[in-house]
Amino acid sequence: MKIAIMGFGVVGSGVGEVVTKNREMLIKKCGEPIEIAHILDLRDFPDSEFKCFTKDFNDILNDPEVGIVVETMGGTKPAYEFSKQLLLAGKSVITSNKELVAAHGTELMQIARERNLNYLFEASVGGGIPIIRPMFSCLTAGEATDVFGILNGTTNYILTQMFQKGESFENALRAAQQKGYAEADPTADVEGHDTCRKIAILSALAFGNEVKTDRIPTEGITKISAADVAYAEKLGYSIKLIGHATKAEDGGVYAAVFPAFVPKTNPLAGINDVFNGIIVKGDDLGDVMFYGRGAGKLPTANAVVADVVDAIKHQGVNIIIKWNEYKEENQSDGKLQKYPYYVRFEGGRVSGLEGCTVVVFNDEEYRDEFAVLTNALTGDELEAFIKAAEEKGCKAVSKLRLIGE
Amino acid sequence: MKIAIMGFGVVGSGVGEVVTKNREMLIKKCGEPIEIAHILDLRDFPDSEFKCFTKDFNDILNDPEVGIVVETMGGTKPAYEFSKQLLLAGKSVITSNKELVAAHGTELMQIARERNLNYLFEASVGGGIPIIRPMFSCLTAGEATDVFGILNGTTNYILTQMFQKGESFENALRAAQQKGYAEADPTADVEGHDTCRKIAILSALAFGNEVKTDRIPTEGITKISAADVAYAEKLGYSIKLIGHATKAEDGGVYAAVFPAFVPKTNPLAGINDVFNGIIVKGDDLGDVMFYGRGAGKLPTANAVVADVVDAIKHQGVNIIIKWNEYKEENQSDGKLQKYPYYVRFEGGRVSGLEGCTVVVFNDEEYRDEFAVLTNALTGDELEAFIKAAEEKGCKAVSKLRLIGE
Repeated sequence: MKIAIMGFGVVGSGVGEVVTKNREMLIKKCGEPIEIAHILDLRDFPDSEFKCFTKDFNDILNDPEVGIVVETMGGTKPAYEFSKQLLLAGKSVITSNKELVAAHGTELMQIARERNLNYLFEASVGGGIPIIRPMFSCLTAGEATDVFGILNGTTNYILTQMFQKGESFENALRAAQQKGYAEADPTADVEGHDTCRKIAILSALAFGNEVKTDRIPTEGITKISAADVAYAEKLGYSIKLIGHATKAEDGGVYAAVFPAFVPKTNPLAGINDVFNGIIVKGDDLGDVMFYGRGAGKLPTANAVVADVVDAIKHQGVNIIIKWNEYKEENQSDGKLQKYPYYVRFEGGRVSGLEGCTVVVFNDEEYRDEFAVLTNALTGDELEAFIKAAEEKGCKAVSKLRLIGE
Repeated sequence: MKIAIMGFGVVGSGVGEVVTKNREMLIKKCGEPIEIAHILDLRDFPDSEFKCFTKDFNDILNDPEVGIVVETMGGTKPAYEFSKQLLLAGKSVITSNKELVAAHGTELMQIARERNLNYLFEASVGGGIPIIRPMFSCLTAGEATDVFGILNGTTNYILTQMFQKGESFENALRAAQQKGYAEADPTADVEGHDTCRKIAILSALAFGNEVKTDRIPTEGITKISAADVAYAEKLGYSIKLIGHATKAEDGGVYAAVFPAFVPKTNPLAGINDVFNGIIVKGDDLGDVMFYGRGAGKLPTANAVVADVVDAIKHQGVNIIIKWNEYKEENQSDGKLQKYPYYVRFEGGRVSGLEGCTVVVFNDEEYRDEFAVLTNALTGDELEAFIKAAEEKGCKAVSKLRLIGE
């Protein structure tokens, strides 16, 4: 089987390495060798062991011997157009590109389905953690009710540093950048956009319908303060950036990204550093958790190559993935969703607050502030609660949901 | 698609419940309804909603409309003979029967392969946790080096009670029996036989070759004492019953079952009560962990039905599972395998022991005993170490491996 790789960055070059290194083993698994016929990249790699670089996409598109193409370019332009053309030309496409899957996966899967091809994307969420395939081929008999994921290693590393070393967000971010875990422009990670794309993919797999990322309320971790961390520690919680998808009260599916208080008794609270973890809950499924390093060149490349192997095993057979096209009514705005909240107030201590537990520190440091844990509230109810508290003479400076009790 | 169920116990009746309850959803996933045509059981179920019970296996074997048969009988007799006849008659078989898969899986998979049928067994390990399919279809591109599993909920519950409540093994076992987590005859669980079958299955999937359960050294948890628990706690370890499969020094695969010291920093140490967890390690895979409730009627039934769905999607197509037949040289006797050990000695304290760290309690309770943590040793080296210590005038009363540092 001849394949091509589009995008020779970290993951793409990892795919080259895995295919070369595990050649004999892959022959046993596929029944035939995997040969890399073309590598598309605008850059030059004069020192590479590979001699099949091209800058012209048509070399891949028009090679009738190439049956499977690995897309590890990232972004949607030109990855979307390239992937579409390849599928229309009868080639299966394997991707690690979460942005593209979240934005155009529905259409690309549809084209693959109509042509008995495959568009597979195990590496798009959780790096080397098998999560996509278990969701569409193992957890299929019962209905999921919730997916909770720690899906971004960078933010989890930052939060872990804040908890374990008492660092501020800014210092922890700098440490993550020094270690190479965060990019110079960390926006996509720390503002939750990366998690948003991943929970969109998991939501579609768990509940069968596409959700739109621009309708997923997304909040990052930049506003988490050392005081929030101190309250969480005092109360037996950790703070994690969570992607949550759930069957909503209004019949649709509600997906959201937010930093949340997670009780230490929940296994998600124990997922530290750059690790990822995903819990799938269902009335009849029992809770299951998938855990591992959510990134990394070779683990992610391994996930891509496992998809290549599966595509080779399924030549002429579309692997059915239930993922219906977007309908507005299937995505909930979450107005009826209730969560308990942690709210921190500054400017004095007030009494007589109802529907909550009040938490104060006995030491000097937090004298002019306090926090509460509320009952489960909708967003509107939370606003009313905060307004009532502020009328008593304090100001809400932080509010975070509680999950996984 | 007409299916049959053989064995209407906990899991078999759960399969009936899941298929009935999720009828509409399953039609969407399979493209056709799943109809239960026969249920084989020697018992009578006059109050059941199902009216298709039979005591005659031939009703299933000779029904040409039945394409898939669920085997939830347990044991190897007559499950082996029945499964084989069904496959030879052109029907796919889905099982939750770990004993049968460990003993005869190689042959049954071979028959399925030759006839473009499927013999699937997701529910045989880890109940509702997806682990079998991820191992053969996700973690395929790189080679695993180790599988570590907490695979038996009963023993994990007992050990958790011993740690959390300071119970003796006997009292914790009694508590597990009262809760329905342990059977009246708990031998298969507490002596490690159940874990042995499961690690045999995982070893074959991870490394591609059958291993024989009677060549898997298997040690249970009956000899774990409150003193061992106290030393573990003092040293920052938990004690877990571990199934371990690893690429051995001699080129084969070494599989073994033993209670082990697991450092609290390892995620396996945090798996408590009846939960199961499996870590798959590989140089290029990154460590991944699968976690969940390892038993339970509906989660396990869901895993069975997910296999049924997959078999329906793969009619006429054998899902390739690399699982070669047993060869003696592929299974290591482990003579060269090294583990660090915890060894507890009674009858006094001796000095001058080399190649180990000595641990003593400062309180009165453990006055006449001490423990050591050794360097990594083979079994022979451990014996020599213990002999040398005993010659100084003490007696080894407990020895446990350390894993997952």
